[in-house]
Formats: sequence, C-alpha cells, structure tokens
Amino acid sequence: MSSPERAVVLLSGGLDSATALAWTLRSRGLAPWVLSFDYGQRAARELDAARHVCAQLGVTRHMVLPLALDALVESALTGQGEVPDDGTGSRPHGIPTTYVPARNTVFLSLALGYAETIGAYTIVLGANALDYSGYPDCRPEYLEQFNALAALATAESVAGGRSIRVEAPFMDLSKADIIRQGLALGLDYGPTVSCYAPRADGRACGRCESCAIRARGFAEVGVPDPALSGEEP
Amino acid sequence: MSSPERAVVLLSGGLDSATALAWTLRSRGLAPWVLSFDYGQRAARELDAARHVCAQLGVTRHMVLPLALDALVESALTGQGEVPDDGTGSRPHGIPTTYVPARNTVFLSLALGYAETIGAYTIVLGANALDYSGYPDCRPEYLEQFNALAALATAESVAGGRSIRVEAPFMDLSKADIIRQGLALGLDYGPTVSCYAPRADGRACGRCESCAIRARGFAEVGVPDPALSGEEP
Repeated sequence: MSSPERAVVLLSGGLDSATALAWTLRSRGLAPWVLSFDYGQRAARELDAARHVCAQLGVTRHMVLPLALDALVESALTGQGEVPDDGTGSRPHGIPTTYVPARNTVFLSLALGYAETIGAYTIVLGANALDYSGYPDCRPEYLEQFNALAALATAESVAGGRSIRVEAPFMDLSKADIIRQGLALGLDYGPTVSCYAPRADGRACGRCESCAIRARGFAEVGVPDPALSGEEP
Repeated sequence: MSSPERAVVLLSGGLDSATALAWTLRSRGLAPWVLSFDYGQRAARELDAARHVCAQLGVTRHMVLPLALDALVESALTGQGEVPDDGTGSRPHGIPTTYVPARNTVFLSLALGYAETIGAYTIVLGANALDYSGYPDCRPEYLEQFNALAALATAESVAGGRSIRVEAPFMDLSKADIIRQGLALGLDYGPTVSCYAPRADGRACGRCESCAIRARGFAEVGVPDPALSGEEP
C-alpha cells in the first residue's frame, strides 16, 4: 500500500483551521504537514492551541515558523524598528482593524515553498468568506488567482508537471456548518481559540466579533462550546 | 511641492538590486522604502552590503526583516527543527541547487504587505530573466501573474482604488546593460556582493556561477569590478 499524498495545512489554532486539519486527515485522506506561524506575542496562546489540536488528531508533523509579520506592519505604523518615523505612515481607509495587510498572501507563499520542498501538491486553508467579508484575501476569486500564480511559480509546474493548489473547503460554509463538519469528524473544539482579544488568563473575551460569530455558530448547531466549559485544554 | 510617491525596493545587497535601488531613486523618482530579509547565517555579509548601498545612496528607510525561509526549506530536507525525519523529504528533480522554493513569491508577498501598510503602489524588484533562466519565479509571465494577484489582494484595490504593482526594470537586460545603467546613475558597485559561496574572509569566491556572470558583465562594459579591487567596503 502506498502512503497517502501529502498536504500542507495552515493551522492557526482557531476553529476553522482545526476543522480544516481534521478534514484533510479524515475526509480528504491526505497526510497533513502542518504549518503554523509565530508572529508576535499574542500568538503564544494560539500556538498552544495549534499544538493541542495536532496532538488530539495524532498529527506529528507540525512546523512552527517564526514570522515578524506584525513587526513589518507595526514598525511602519509606529516608526519603531528600523523604519524612521516621518509621521506619515498610515493605512488606506476602510480596512478592518483586525486586517493585516497581505497576511494570507504571505502565509500561502510560505506554504507554497514548504509544499514544493516536501513534494505536496495541496495546501489546505480554513478560510471562509462569510466571516471575513471585509478581507480581500479571503475570497474565492483571490484564491483562484493565487492558484494561477502557483501554477507559474514552482519548478515542477513550469516544467509541465503538476501544480500546487490551494483548497479552501469551507469557503462558502457558515460557521455552524463548519462546526457540524468538525463534530462529525470527531474533532474536540475544546483546545481551539478564536478570540481577537483574550483575557489575561488566556480565556476568550466573549465579546469580540470573532467570539460572537463562534457563539452564534455553536448556538445554531445546538451544542455548547467546549472551549467555554471552564476547563482549560 | 508634494513629496514623491513611495516605492518598496527589495534589496539583497547584490548588483541587480543595488542598481534597482539607484534606478528607483534617481531615474524613476520614487521615495524608496527598502526591505531586506535576514534569512540565515550566510545573509550577514549581504545585509552589510545592503546597508552600505543604502548609506551610499542616502537612503535611510531600510527595514531588515528576520525570515526563517532557509529553516522552512532545510528543516524539511534534513528533518531538523519540528519536522520529523521520515526519510522521504526530497525536492522534485530539475531544480537548480541555488533555487529556494517560492522565494520570490514569499519576498513579494511581504513587500506587498509592507507597501499596503505604508501607502506605496510600486514594488521594485531587481530580478532579470537572463541570469536566472532556471528559476520559475524570475520570469515576466510570473511577475504579471503576481500583479494580477496583487490587484485582488489589497483592501484599496478591491474597493475600486489603485493596485500595488511590481516593476522589474531589468527583467530583459543583460548584466552588462544593468552595470552600464548603474554606473550612469553614479552607483559605486564596491560594496555589492553577488557570490553564492563567499570565502571565510567574506570576499567573493570568483568561481561560482554568480561570480562568473558578474565578471563577464564588467568585462563586457570594459571597467574593473570595484568589489575585486582589494578594498573592503
């Protein structure tokens, strides 16, 4: 019996990407090579969650890559780091405050390099368009364009071989549908975190947009959110 | 008088990107916000060169971003880091040994995030197709596809505003033509480094492919390479 094909799975430790990992392993039948990014102080709790999710699913291939993405953005905005403050660094209007410029483009590019290195042809991304309607890089047309780029970006595809493609299986699903799928796959959502502004003890704030979307999802499914059960993972 | 538009310039410290910086500043008339990447031990000498080039041209906005790109690739190949060695990690055939999977895609994605943050609409890349014919991500069609992605990837462009675009002014130039252009712009090539395998003292090896291409370029122009004059920058 040949071993299953590999897939790079981007795992933040949140609900969507945890479900994407379970889907890759148990529904899509690929061997997941998980990639997480350590891009700042607040990421520590998310990385803990990501490690718990991997352990729960028996996934041992988990790369945590340091990535100074916040520094890139914040340095320019605050004048810290090696970027001098000329007082004019500001983002264009109309961007959600939680939006990090080009974040998915950066994450997918690194996943592309990783996939090419390990011989994977699939990158799995837990993004869904409904929750992130203000994010340009969480839309189906964006992902299609990324795949068009990937088809020109790797040595094998340019030589006439296979391309690496991003799959975003939950792009058009509601949060409740994602949760239903995860539960059906046996995923325990206890360790996952979705909060934009966790409290000092690391628990979800229960008030930010991400917490609200998650709470509505569990309410719609009719099950309690195990992350709110009072037990730390 | 309004201040000039900004451009993010990717600077490695090599001949091509140094010329691209001089071109951005003195020919294209944009205000350069320079971005370099610190992605491994061997990069220290290149980063010194990049700093010297910025100083020479009077450019003060220079961000050096740590980027564990080598770790991403090498961990997978060697089994170090958090990627377990299952003995099957190998790259597809036919890739030059100096090729780093998806490197330009990663660099351009980070430049895209930086450009969106600082309000720049131009990313300048010193790549040229002639020297890097084996690299999928150094071809005009690749860059056009990246620009198509960028048009879908930023908040302003999706809202109907301007897109961020990559310009690669030397894409179709020979090394000699690039050198002629840099000399005409007053660039001193002394501090630049192009060597893949510098000696212990940091000097160019004079034998690798990159050194050979550079030597032919200076020979064709008919001037000595100041980096070989025996004087350290």
